[in-house]
Amino acid sequence: MTTAKYKEGMEEMRRHLGPAADKWIKSIKEISPEFAKVNVEFPFGELYTRDVLDDKTRELCTVAALTVQGFALPELKVHVKGAINCGASREEVLEVITQMIAYCGFPASTNGLLAAKEVLDELGAEPADKP
Amino acid sequence: MTTAKYKEGMEEMRRHLGPAADKWIKSIKEISPEFAKVNVEFPFGELYTRDVLDDKTRELCTVAALTVQGFALPELKVHVKGAINCGASREEVLEVITQMIAYCGFPASTNGLLAAKEVLDELGAEPADKP
Amino acid sequence: MTTAKYKEGMEEMRRHLGPAADKWIKSIKEISPEFAKVNVEFPFGELYTRDVLDDKTRELCTVAALTVQGFALPELKVHVKGAINCGASREEVLEVITQMIAYCGFPASTNGLLAAKEVLDELGAEPADKP
Amino acid sequence: MTTAKYKEGMEEMRRHLGPAADKWIKSIKEISPEFAKVNVEFPFGELYTRDVLDDKTRELCTVAALTVQGFALPELKVHVKGAINCGASREEVLEVITQMIAYCGFPASTNGLLAAKEVLDELGAEPADKP
Amino acid sequence: MTTAKYKEGMEEMRRHLGPAADKWIKSIKEISPEFAKVNVEFPFGELYTRDVLDDKTRELCTVAALTVQGFALPELKVHVKGAINCGASREEVLEVITQMIAYCGFPASTNGLLAAKEVLDELGAEPADKP
Amino acid sequence: MTTAKYKEGMEEMRRHLGPAADKWIKSIKEISPEFAKVNVEFPFGELYTRDVLDDKTRELCTVAALTVQGFALPELKVHVKGAINCGASREEVLEVITQMIAYCGFPASTNGLLAAKEVLDELGAEPADKP
Repeated sequence: MTTAKYKEGMEEMRRHLGPAADKWIKSIKEISPEFAKVNVEFPFGELYTRDVLDDKTRELCTVAALTVQGFALPELKVHVKGAINCGASREEVLEVITQMIAYCGFPASTNGLLAAKEVLDELGAEPADKP
Repeated sequence: MTTAKYKEGMEEMRRHLGPAADKWIKSIKEISPEFAKVNVEFPFGELYTRDVLDDKTRELCTVAALTVQGFALPELKVHVKGAINCGASREEVLEVITQMIAYCGFPASTNGLLAAKEVLDELGAEPADKP
Repeated sequence: MTTAKYKEGMEEMRRHLGPAADKWIKSIKEISPEFAKVNVEFPFGELYTRDVLDDKTRELCTVAALTVQGFALPELKVHVKGAINCGASREEVLEVITQMIAYCGFPASTNGLLAAKEVLDELGAEPADKP
Repeated sequence: MTTAKYKEGMEEMRRHLGPAADKWIKSIKEISPEFAKVNVEFPFGELYTRDVLDDKTRELCTVAALTVQGFALPELKVHVKGAINCGASREEVLEVITQMIAYCGFPASTNGLLAAKEVLDELGAEPADKP
Repeated sequence: MTTAKYKEGMEEMRRHLGPAADKWIKSIKEISPEFAKVNVEFPFGELYTRDVLDDKTRELCTVAALTVQGFALPELKVHVKGAINCGASREEVLEVITQMIAYCGFPASTNGLLAAKEVLDELGAEPADKP
Repeated sequence: MTTAKYKEGMEEMRRHLGPAADKWIKSIKEISPEFAKVNVEFPFGELYTRDVLDDKTRELCTVAALTVQGFALPELKVHVKGAINCGASREEVLEVITQMIAYCGFPASTNGLLAAKEVLDELGAEPADKP
């Protein structure tokens, strides 16, 4: 059974994450349809659709959160792509991760940086200028 | 030197984890016999043998704890097996991990879900119904 | 606007936490009605109402999770009360917190123990036997 | 000895946090001048002065990070004030904290909400509309 | 019943923490004798008595660990006293906490610094030189 | 542009980590020169060069911190090498990780133990005596 909130959430999720949204949810649904349901309905159907913050700010805040946690690298990769999709530049994404050093230290932010690089490379973004 | 508490702990550990218990402790012992000693004597010889909670409840609480931590995926896999060995169903294990979304958010619980799936697949559990 | 899921969640929350449920949600609602809405609808309306785990097991798993996090002492107090309300004994609650030493170490579990004591004292539970 | 970077950091810190900046650093300096030095020079003199992100986005990302950590409530209060000083509305700050539920669960974000409320009350912000 | 390991642990604990050891364990024992038992036997009877590291190094490593966790301030205070008792200077304790900025960021290490100050003030240590 | 603090930090980093220092920073610099700059200047140029703690104690405290975090295994490997380079024995490194069980529980310390083993094996250290 697909609720209205599920449909709305799935559309919001696609708008942020692109085709990765359907692939991600499909893999979760194979393990637990209930988990997939709330994953779509709650963050995307309920929170991200609210009109208070623009998409890019939401995604950069999520990049900040996932960097700080240190263990959330698969999800960080998804939202680095989300941030780029929502209009953030490569430099802005890397800057948020760099700013996080002050709040979570070097290990968590370094792991975030290395995970972000994998995504940015796939997206064909040009390399940062070297000194 | 093997203490009485070590023997008791090793038996308790086998009762929870099956043959994985000996394999796990053997690999730890090769690095540090002292670490292996306390790993057997303390959680299994001291805590799990106490008569206050049944084995299944203990294992589900451990699944909850390891999911929330986010970084403890190898240990989570061991205790998903432990929960099944102690009488929990596949659905109960997945439900505990799903309930944890409320306490640790989606990234940690998603990683827990994916780790649990690997173990449940090995154990030949039937797939969840799809919607 | 009160949804059907909100009503269902509020009833579930009262069943677990007693009069503390309304007080808690009222205080959240004064800061952010949106936060209060999802706090009722999601964990209580969506997760706790599912039929897979009994109430007592759910509450003990939540006690495990909140102990391990280390910083969630106000919420731990709420769910110690919830566990007692759902049929857990004082000894079972303390045993879950003690078992967590193995997963989060002494500092987090000690803080959990001290927070639980405050609630158990209020509830007039008899003191543990001393050696 | 006050370096150029310290002066620049102190100015940046005042621009974000207002008079709270000097009070905070003074209290740190009394315990450890070295800690105070790097606290000014590194996050504020080095990171926040870079031109890649606007001040408001930086502060909202910091609010996200401190909410997720769960234990950083004194620092969260400082940066809720910082976000307001840099042009964020009360609603935007509360929305970031609410969005974090998806990444850190209810306990950490609830604690963040309660801490933010204290600051917003002091700032005389008008209460949110109630349903 | 008091085991040999309990006696040995209690002596080790007193050697590290002074009279605070008995007071701490007494307060834990009133809540849960079992928790108090393992708190004495395991870290102090089992780990701290091993001959591999000197007491001061052990205590400084514990100060590092408790700072990084962010939520373990009561325990950090106990071990700041422990580090001083085992021969660390005020400067060495503050330096470990300062070094942790690199590994856990400013919020956790700032909270550690403020907690350490309370203990160092009680101990009558002279204030650090101000710049 | 290479500052004096960068040069000093790079030398300190090499003294602790050996040739791994240049390799690590090179890989970071390719993603973000700014991140690499602060990674050298701040922990190594600013903190590690201060004269308050000897190198071995600093590295053991860092091993403690990275073990407790649970997710910082790549960085832990780097600093296990650092501790050995600064005069710690294999036994001392393993003892710090084992002591951490008391502060972060078995999952994080077990992961630390397994990561440390990989480094110690590469360094050709002799195996621990087995019981």
